[in-house]
Amino acid sequence: MFNKTYLLPGEALKYLLSSITDKDITIERLRIEECYNRIIANDITAPEDLPQFSRSTVDGYALNSRDTFGAKENSPAYITVKNEIFMGIAPDFKLNALEAAKIPTGGMLPEGADAVLMLEHVQMISEDMIEIMRSVSPNENVIQKGEDIKKGETILTKGRKLMAQDIGALAGLGITEIDVFKKPIVSIISTGDEIVPASSPLKLGQVRDINSFTLAGLISEHGGIPVKKGIFKDDYDTIKNAIKEAIHDSDMVLISGGTSAGTKDMTAQIINDIAGIYGSAGVLFHGVSLKPGKPTIGGIIKNKPVLGLPGHPAATVVCFDIFIRPVIEKLSGLNSERKFIKSIIAKMAKNIASAAGREDHIRVYLEERDGEILAIPVLGKSGLITTLVKADGIVIIPQNKLGLDAGERVIVRLF
Amino acid sequence: MFNKTYLLPGEALKYLLSSITDKDITIERLRIEECYNRIIANDITAPEDLPQFSRSTVDGYALNSRDTFGAKENSPAYITVKNEIFMGIAPDFKLNALEAAKIPTGGMLPEGADAVLMLEHVQMISEDMIEIMRSVSPNENVIQKGEDIKKGETILTKGRKLMAQDIGALAGLGITEIDVFKKPIVSIISTGDEIVPASSPLKLGQVRDINSFTLAGLISEHGGIPVKKGIFKDDYDTIKNAIKEAIHDSDMVLISGGTSAGTKDMTAQIINDIAGIYGSAGVLFHGVSLKPGKPTIGGIIKNKPVLGLPGHPAATVVCFDIFIRPVIEKLSGLNSERKFIKSIIAKMAKNIASAAGREDHIRVYLEERDGEILAIPVLGKSGLITTLVKADGIVIIPQNKLGLDAGERVIVRLF
Repeated sequence: MFNKTYLLPGEALKYLLSSITDKDITIERLRIEECYNRIIANDITAPEDLPQFSRSTVDGYALNSRDTFGAKENSPAYITVKNEIFMGIAPDFKLNALEAAKIPTGGMLPEGADAVLMLEHVQMISEDMIEIMRSVSPNENVIQKGEDIKKGETILTKGRKLMAQDIGALAGLGITEIDVFKKPIVSIISTGDEIVPASSPLKLGQVRDINSFTLAGLISEHGGIPVKKGIFKDDYDTIKNAIKEAIHDSDMVLISGGTSAGTKDMTAQIINDIAGIYGSAGVLFHGVSLKPGKPTIGGIIKNKPVLGLPGHPAATVVCFDIFIRPVIEKLSGLNSERKFIKSIIAKMAKNIASAAGREDHIRVYLEERDGEILAIPVLGKSGLITTLVKADGIVIIPQNKLGLDAGERVIVRLF
Repeated sequence: MFNKTYLLPGEALKYLLSSITDKDITIERLRIEECYNRIIANDITAPEDLPQFSRSTVDGYALNSRDTFGAKENSPAYITVKNEIFMGIAPDFKLNALEAAKIPTGGMLPEGADAVLMLEHVQMISEDMIEIMRSVSPNENVIQKGEDIKKGETILTKGRKLMAQDIGALAGLGITEIDVFKKPIVSIISTGDEIVPASSPLKLGQVRDINSFTLAGLISEHGGIPVKKGIFKDDYDTIKNAIKEAIHDSDMVLISGGTSAGTKDMTAQIINDIAGIYGSAGVLFHGVSLKPGKPTIGGIIKNKPVLGLPGHPAATVVCFDIFIRPVIEKLSGLNSERKFIKSIIAKMAKNIASAAGREDHIRVYLEERDGEILAIPVLGKSGLITTLVKADGIVIIPQNKLGLDAGERVIVRLF
């Protein structure tokens, strides 16, 4: 299907995402040390209680809370200290009524005890007798068996991105290997007769490949494996072969640049021609109501997303945020939507105009003045990489707004 | 120096940071592909202009803007199309008055041209003649030589954490290797007679090592190299030897746990004893006005920061955020303060009480209800790892507030 109408970015993305099925996401088994920021492939159920015994959360005396009821300054309770509990060792004794045992933080409560009285609240009156001037309630200063995690409880669900503390919880349960989804491989095909590698000296008229470096970094950061396929001439067969090969050995294909006259249509043509071989959808959209990033092409070949990206560095980063990141996240098996995007509220420092019906992504830098955070637009054409280097983040002007006023509060999505 | 007064977390951190000098941060030279998120060790100056020639930002006709002045629908200008410009090739001709050349996006302007008229605004009236019905201003649709980056300009300053787009800018300038600061090595010493490795079966009274997994993940994420030294018994000589070895082969030492009675003081004693050998400051603070995280110890041995961390998982994460992260950042050579922390504004769902004079870090999860983001406190003791697994971030109640009210707007620092 070939849609020449300009969609809004959100619509175009939905279109693209709904064309990807997730049946092909493969799984690998890894040691938990290797699983930080990876996406978990199955729900994980606790094989045991955590902790497996009731523990003290303070240094003090384990006892039966009943024995302290009614204890106050003018009518203390007296309890015999029967024993001492050591870290990591199960007590081999039982407490009877009016008996206590000294216990360290993290120590295991003996049978017969249901609470711990803090050291600070106890008076030693002889070597084996304590005076208690306040009561404790059942379970006070105790983490009960299974209070953190109960055996059989689902602790992490399929599709979650594993945080450092999640790995800690797995370690706590003795789970040392888990299944995670393989990272999607994202190929980057750089095109343009004027583009040379970063390491090349320049002839007049040539520029070096910038976007593949920016894209590779962003892809890694968001859970993909970038594969730079190299720089290809703006020629039908050359680019067709490059895309065919990339479709074969990766999960997503990005074609960056190809900015010379007529090349944009050629890229769309090639996507449709290859899609035809496999009976795939081909181009889903060609152009979006977006600035920067208008000439973006989105398509599907063999169930794999293919994106044609404008050559301008700023457009590359905006397209990454709008299209590539969500697609990588879907291909990664990530379940949660990016509901809570890392951002900051700031005050626009200047008026910014925007055309109706178009989503504008404004690069801004932030400055603190008089205790307020100001978002100051970075001026300069979207072809300038320095506009991105200077920016701290992006402010989006939605299609139904005609701009932003100085002083208006905006959400800045931080880089 | 040994300070038993409880400092506020911010004061304790300042104290710790001011005791670290940065003379020891070493440098390594790496290919730019390896430098994403690394800290740059020197100011970088552009060796050349970017771009090195004036480029078109559109498909159109390169010409001299003067020739279009006054052109309108009822009085068009007529210009001879002399030639065509191809991508990546310097034009070998010069435009005279009333001459134009077809140019693709990114193409190099020929001598004599100072602007580009978009294809859409041109009428071909013969094979080599165009009709122009609007004027263009000088430099319209052109990125001038050096407009992105000027030769000699400082583009990235020492101490900056390199973003994907920064690496792109370096590539654009042909800079393929740079000096970055070496990542600091952070040793983790786990202590506690009750602690066993994650892979061990448990005897009653034992628990598995959780915190070293959480810490290792957080250290990596924030630019350090975690080294797990293993689990050590709560014994003076054992822990002293472990710390001495770690001081020798790392840039920062974390001692996690040691929660049994008396061990906290033992850790402080050991830090002071080793510091004594080298004439270092030793313990700077022992205990902070912070919940969770009160028993934290901070010290300096041989100019290297040493932190004793409480064993509770939630306290570990809070201490990481308050102490370890800023210290890693200083040891990394990071120059910018974390001025703009990634966060979100939410509405407290419940009242939360807090003691005066203490900074409380409340774990919260976020929920969207009726278009508003609610911050809901995660209940549970700070010894529970699941309180962290369930949380989306942290709300800080400063020492001069007695709590938060339901409905109050708060800043949630996202994990």
